Amino acid sequence: MAPISPIAVSIGDPSGIGPEVIAKAWEQRAARKLRPFFAVGDRRSISAVWDGPVTPVMTPQEAAEHYDLALPIMHVEDADDIVPGQPNVQGARCALHSLELAVGLTRSGAAGAIVTGPVAKALLYNIGFTHPGQTEFIAERCGIAAINTAMMLVGPDLRTVPVTIHVPLRQVPDRLSTELIISRVRVTERGLARNFGIEAPRIAIAGFNPHAGEGGAIGSEEIEIIAPAIEQLRAEGINVSGPHSSDTLFHARARATYDAAICLYHDQALIPIKTLYFDEGVNMTLGLPIVRTAPDHGTAFEIAGKNRAEPGAMIAAIRVAAECAEMRAANV
Amino acid sequence: MAPISPIAVSIGDPSGIGPEVIAKAWEQRAARKLRPFFAVGDRRSISAVWDGPVTPVMTPQEAAEHYDLALPIMHVEDADDIVPGQPNVQGARCALHSLELAVGLTRSGAAGAIVTGPVAKALLYNIGFTHPGQTEFIAERCGIAAINTAMMLVGPDLRTVPVTIHVPLRQVPDRLSTELIISRVRVTERGLARNFGIEAPRIAIAGFNPHAGEGGAIGSEEIEIIAPAIEQLRAEGINVSGPHSSDTLFHARARATYDAAICLYHDQALIPIKTLYFDEGVNMTLGLPIVRTAPDHGTAFEIAGKNRAEPGAMIAAIRVAAECAEMRAANV
Repeated sequence: MAPISPIAVSIGDPSGIGPEVIAKAWEQRAARKLRPFFAVGDRRSISAVWDGPVTPVMTPQEAAEHYDLALPIMHVEDADDIVPGQPNVQGARCALHSLELAVGLTRSGAAGAIVTGPVAKALLYNIGFTHPGQTEFIAERCGIAAINTAMMLVGPDLRTVPVTIHVPLRQVPDRLSTELIISRVRVTERGLARNFGIEAPRIAIAGFNPHAGEGGAIGSEEIEIIAPAIEQLRAEGINVSGPHSSDTLFHARARATYDAAICLYHDQALIPIKTLYFDEGVNMTLGLPIVRTAPDHGTAFEIAGKNRAEPGAMIAAIRVAAECAEMRAANV
Repeated sequence: MAPISPIAVSIGDPSGIGPEVIAKAWEQRAARKLRPFFAVGDRRSISAVWDGPVTPVMTPQEAAEHYDLALPIMHVEDADDIVPGQPNVQGARCALHSLELAVGLTRSGAAGAIVTGPVAKALLYNIGFTHPGQTEFIAERCGIAAINTAMMLVGPDLRTVPVTIHVPLRQVPDRLSTELIISRVRVTERGLARNFGIEAPRIAIAGFNPHAGEGGAIGSEEIEIIAPAIEQLRAEGINVSGPHSSDTLFHARARATYDAAICLYHDQALIPIKTLYFDEGVNMTLGLPIVRTAPDHGTAFEIAGKNRAEPGAMIAAIRVAAECAEMRAANV
C-alpha cells in the first residue's frame, strides 16, 4: 500500500472518554497493527486518566518519529481544569479547537486522515457552535454542502447508510423522497469506490415497511418512493437492488451479497451494526475530500476517568481511516 | 422434567417446504434430542420429497411408540395432486384440516403442544378461511380473543415481542397506545412465567424514535405513550425498564439484562432476531391455554422439493415447544 501521513485523532471533549480510548488504542498499536497516529487536544486530559508515555509534537512528521515510544500529542490548551466526567465550557472550547486543528492538518495533507473523538453537542452550542454536529463542521471546512455527504456505519462485514438520521420516526415517511435516496446512493457508490477500492459496488436498498410492503399490501413507500429511485439509479449504471425486507437483509449470508445497505431511518441502519458489532462500530463520513471516521459512541461522561472505557471502536476507527487513506493514496 | 405427550406438527401447505423440514427434523431427532413428535397432514406430501421411513398413526400414543423407527404421520387426505412448489386450493384445504386436527389434539391434551408448518394465506382465503392467519384461528379455537395473545420471536439468547405486526410503518405511531403496550407486556410477563418458568421476568421496552427520543428532542411517543405504560406496569409489580434506545438494546451484553424485549413495530423486533438467528428463529404465540410455536419462515415454494430447505427453524420450534410444554406440565 502507499505510505500515508500520520492520522490526526481529535480528543473530543477532554472530560469524556476520548482521552482514555485514544491512550488505550496507542497501547495496542503493535497488536492491532495501527498505522501511526497522534492525538490533538489538551495533553492534561490524557495524563489525568493515563500513566503511559506522552510526547508533545509540533508536526505530524514528528509524531511519526516518536510514535513507537510514546503517544504523540499536538497540544491545544484551553481548559483550566479538566476533571474526567465533569464537562464544562472550557472543555467544549478545547474540543472545538482540537477539531479545527485536526481538520486543517488533514485538509492540508499533513495528516493522512482525521478521526474525531466524541463531543458534547449541548456544550458546543453554548460556546456559539452553529453546526448540528462535527460532521457538518468538517463538511463546511472542506467546502462541501452537508447534503452531499453521507454517514456510513462500518462493521467488519457490514456497512449501512441511513437516509435519515435524527428524525422522529413519525416524520420519516414525509422526509423520504426519491431524490434524497438517489443522492445518498450516489455518495455511497463513490465513497465505496474511493475509500474501499470497490469498483461497481453492490448497493442493497432496504424497504421501509414490514416485508418491504408486500407489493403495496403493507404500505406504499416502496412503490412510490423507493422503486423510482432504484429505476433511475440503474439507468445511471449503478448496481442497486431492492427494496429488500429489512428483517432478512442483515444475516451473514445476506450481508455477503452487497457492499453497503441503504437504510431509510436511524434504527434500521444502527440496530444491525450495534447488535453485531457493539464494541467496534465505526462512523464514517462519505462525500468529503478527506477521510474522516469516528468511533460510534458518545462521551460517556458517567464512566470517564474510571478506566472502564473500551477502546475497540476507537481502534477500529483509526484502522478504517488508515485503510481508506491508503486506498486513496494508491489511486491518486 | 415432567413427561409430555408427543407434539403435533401440522405440515402446513403440502406443496411448500413444510414436509421437507419436518422429515429432516425427524432425521436429526437423536442428535438434536428432540422429544417425540408426529406430522399431521397428507403423507403423500412427505413421500414426494423424502425417501425415509414414514408410519401412519391414529393416535399420539401410537406416534410415541413408533417415533424411534419412523416419522409418525396422522394422515389428512384432501389433495388430489401434490406437486412441490405448485400450490393449489386442495393443498390449502389440506393445510387447514391439518391445522384443525392438530389444534384439537393439543386442546384435548392428547398432544403435548402444537407446531404449525407454513401456509399460503392467499390460498386459504380462497377456500373461505376468514382469519388473518393461523394464530387467530388457533386463538379462536381456544376461546381466546386474538388481542389477548402476543407473538414472541424466540432465539437462543433473545426474545422479542412486537406490539404491532403487519402495519405500515407510517401508521404505527397512531396504532400505538399506552393500553396496547400494557396489554402486550402483561401477556408477555405471564407467558415467560408459564412457558419458561421465569419468575418476575425482566421486560425491556424499546423506544420508538432514534435514541428513544432523547427526552423529547427527537419525537414524543416515548413521553406520551411508552412512559405512562411503564409507570402503570411498575405499579402492578411488573419488572419493566425503558424506553431504551433500540440500537443499543440487542448486543450480547444488553441481551443478558432482560428476559424479553417489547418492540413497537415489526422490523424493530425482527431485525435483531433474524440478523442473529436467521436459521433458527421460532415464532411463539403467548396467551393461549396450549403451547404453540412455528418456524419463523414461510412456504418457500420456490425451493420446495429441491432438497434445499434448512430444518433449523423447525427443529428449534419443536425443541422450544417441548421445553415449554414440559415446563407447564411440571407446574400444573
